Amino acid sequence: MLHANENYARIKPTYLFAEIAHRVAEYQRANPSAHVIRLGIGDVTEPLAPAVIAAMHRAVDDEGGRGEFHGYGPEQGYGFLREKIAEFDFRRRGVGISAEEILVSDGAKCDCGNFQELFSEDVKIAVGDPVYPVYVDSNVMAGRRDIALLPCTAENGFVPSPAGCDADIAYLCYPNNPTGAVATAAQLQEWVDWANARGSLIIFDAAYEAFIRTPGVPHSIYECAGAKKCAVEIRSFSKTAGFTGVRCGYTVVPDGLCAYHADGTAVELRPMWTRRQTTKFNGASYITQRGAEAVYSPEGLAQTKAAVDFYLGNARIIKEALSKSGYSVTGGDDSPYLWVDVKGDSWGFFDRLLTAANVVVTPGAGFGSAGEGYIRVSAFNSRANVLEAVRRMEKAL
Amino acid sequence: MLHANENYARIKPTYLFAEIAHRVAEYQRANPSAHVIRLGIGDVTEPLAPAVIAAMHRAVDDEGGRGEFHGYGPEQGYGFLREKIAEFDFRRRGVGISAEEILVSDGAKCDCGNFQELFSEDVKIAVGDPVYPVYVDSNVMAGRRDIALLPCTAENGFVPSPAGCDADIAYLCYPNNPTGAVATAAQLQEWVDWANARGSLIIFDAAYEAFIRTPGVPHSIYECAGAKKCAVEIRSFSKTAGFTGVRCGYTVVPDGLCAYHADGTAVELRPMWTRRQTTKFNGASYITQRGAEAVYSPEGLAQTKAAVDFYLGNARIIKEALSKSGYSVTGGDDSPYLWVDVKGDSWGFFDRLLTAANVVVTPGAGFGSAGEGYIRVSAFNSRANVLEAVRRMEKAL
Repeated sequence: MLHANENYARIKPTYLFAEIAHRVAEYQRANPSAHVIRLGIGDVTEPLAPAVIAAMHRAVDDEGGRGEFHGYGPEQGYGFLREKIAEFDFRRRGVGISAEEILVSDGAKCDCGNFQELFSEDVKIAVGDPVYPVYVDSNVMAGRRDIALLPCTAENGFVPSPAGCDADIAYLCYPNNPTGAVATAAQLQEWVDWANARGSLIIFDAAYEAFIRTPGVPHSIYECAGAKKCAVEIRSFSKTAGFTGVRCGYTVVPDGLCAYHADGTAVELRPMWTRRQTTKFNGASYITQRGAEAVYSPEGLAQTKAAVDFYLGNARIIKEALSKSGYSVTGGDDSPYLWVDVKGDSWGFFDRLLTAANVVVTPGAGFGSAGEGYIRVSAFNSRANVLEAVRRMEKAL
Repeated sequence: MLHANENYARIKPTYLFAEIAHRVAEYQRANPSAHVIRLGIGDVTEPLAPAVIAAMHRAVDDEGGRGEFHGYGPEQGYGFLREKIAEFDFRRRGVGISAEEILVSDGAKCDCGNFQELFSEDVKIAVGDPVYPVYVDSNVMAGRRDIALLPCTAENGFVPSPAGCDADIAYLCYPNNPTGAVATAAQLQEWVDWANARGSLIIFDAAYEAFIRTPGVPHSIYECAGAKKCAVEIRSFSKTAGFTGVRCGYTVVPDGLCAYHADGTAVELRPMWTRRQTTKFNGASYITQRGAEAVYSPEGLAQTKAAVDFYLGNARIIKEALSKSGYSVTGGDDSPYLWVDVKGDSWGFFDRLLTAANVVVTPGAGFGSAGEGYIRVSAFNSRANVLEAVRRMEKAL
C-alpha cells in the first residue's frame, strides 16, 4: 500500500499566502476594473540594483561562452560569494564568521523549511505566536507534534522571554515577521544564555536585517556572547537586495555546533547540513550568485541601501496614517512590516479592506491565534501605490 | 536534548561526487601541472544556446526595471513555461499532459530527493543497482530501511523486470544513469502494469530523455497505457539544455494520482506536492524560467538539439575507442553515459586512470554493489578534451 505521509493532514491544506492570493483573485474576477493594491505578502516591487543587473548580465554572458562557463557549482555556494558574505555581513560588524561557515542556498524560506530535517522527530520546538508559518508547517509535515507557542503580545513588546521554555529548538526572527518588532541585545543574549544552559539550538531568521536603522539593535545573533555554540542564522537577499524572484539566501552553521545521538555521541551540524544539501539540492543558480556578489560592491551596497531606505520611507507613511486614524501600530521602524491592532476579527478586517479600499493586507490570525485582532501591513510597493493605499484606507477606516 | 536525525549515520558521510572531487583535488595538489580531463560527473561543458542566453538577458533587464519586474513567482512555476513544456515535451509526442500537471522546480535532483517526503516512513522502495545515489540516500535520510535493490546486469541488459518486486515505490531512470541503458516500450509497459496491479507508484526519472535517438525508444513513461494512474515523471533542463549551473527541472504529477492514509482514504499527490513546495521551496529563478521557455522557441529547439548531438558524437568516439581496446561498453547511443566493464575493482580502475591518463571517470561501485567491476564514462566535455582523453586512455589501458 502506498501510504501517504499522514502529517500532511495535520496542516491547513493551503499555505497562508496562497489563501490570500485566492481571495484576491476571486475579488478581482468579480470586480475586474478594481485597482487592487497589495500590501499583503512581503514581496518587493522595485527594480534590482544596477550593479546587480550588470553582474547578472556578465554571468549570463559567461554561460553563453563569452566568459568562463559554469556548470554544477558547489552545493554550498561559490567561494567568491561566501567570502564576500563573511567579510561584509559579519567581520566588518565585528563578528567572527568564516566563509566556510556560510552555506548559500536558493532562499531563506527553503533553509527555514529544510533545516529541521537534521533532527530527530522527537525534538521539541518553540516558535513565537504569531509566527512565519514555514517554521511550524515544516515541522508538522516532518511529524513533530511538540510545538510550543510563545505568545508575542503588546504586553511583552512582541518579544517573548525564554523563561520556562523547555524546547530543544527555538525559532527566533528579528526584525520579526510578522510583527516588525526588534529584539534588544539584552533580550537576544537572554535567549543565547538559555540555549547554552539547556543545550538547545536557536534557529535565528535574520531575513529582515537590512532594515535595521536604530543604533544598538543587533543585526546578527552572533553579536551575543556564546551564540556560535548554540545558533544557526538564516539570511536572505530577498528583502536586502530585492531577490524574491532571483532566489538566494544563506545559512550560517558555525564550526563545532553539534546535535547528539541517543547514546550521547555528538554530531556536527555543518557536515550534516552539507550532506542534506548535496543530496537534496544542487546549488543556487550561478547567475544569481554573481548577482548576490555584486550586492557587496561599493555601488551595490549604496544602491541596495537606497532601496531599503525607500521601503522604510513607505513604512513611515503607512505608520503615520494608521496612527493618525487611531490604530496602535508596532514595527515599521527597523522593519518593512507594520503590525496593526484592529481590535477585531482579522480576516473580517482583511475582507473589509479588500472590498472597501481595494487594499490587500495579511490577517494576523493567519500567523497564529495570538495574531487574531491584528493585521500585518507590508511596506513593499511603489510610493504612488502606498500613498493611494493610505488615502483609501483613511477614507474607509 | 537536541537529538540528531540518526538516519544520517546510516549513509556514507560523503556524497559520491564529493568523494571523487576530493580525490581529484588531492591528485591535482600533488601534480599541479597535470591537465586532468573530467569524464566523471555528468556536467555539461558547452555554452548555453544563444536563444536561451538572449532570453535570460531580457529577463535580467525585466528585473532591472526595463520590462515587467517579477518578484515571488508561483512555487509551481510560471504558466508561460508550464504551457510550453506541456505542448512540446508531451502533447506534440501524443501524450496528454496539461500545464497544471507540470510543477517546475530548481532541478531534477531536488525533485528526486524531495518527492519521497509525501509518503509514510513505512513505504517499501525499489531501486536499480547500480543507481543514482540520490534515490537511496534521500530515503535513508528520511528513515526508510526497506529498500530493495534490483540488479541491473549484463544478463538482463541492465533493465530489471518487476517480477517479484513488492515495493510501494519504484524509481526507474531511462535512459539510465549510470548505465546508459534504455528501456523498450514493452519493458516500461511491464512496469506500469505491475504498478497498477499492485497500487504502487513509479517515480520515473527522464533527465536524459533528450539523448534518445533510436526510433521506438519511449521518451516518457506516459507513452505507456495506464501510466497516468501510477507514475510521476521527473525531467531536467540540465542535460537537455545545459542548465546544470542555471537550475531548472520539473515533475509531472498527473490529475487524480493518489496515495492512501492508513484508513484507506485516498489523498491526491499533486495538492500534497504543491503543499510541500509552497512550504519548503519558493520557486525557480524567474531568469532561469525565461531561459527554459526559450528552449522551446524554434531557434532554442534547434540549438539545444545540436548541443545534445555534439555530446552524442563524443559518446560515439569514446565508445569506439574503448570497444577497440577490448572493453565491453553499454550505453552511449541514446545516452551521454557509457558503462564499461573493467573486469576488476572499479575504484582501483578510477585511480589508475586518474594517475596514468589524468582522466576522471566514475567508479561503478559508487552507484551500488552491482556497479563493481564497471566504470561510468560521461560524454560531457569539449571535443578536444574527449579526443585527448581517448588518446591517453588507449595508451594507458
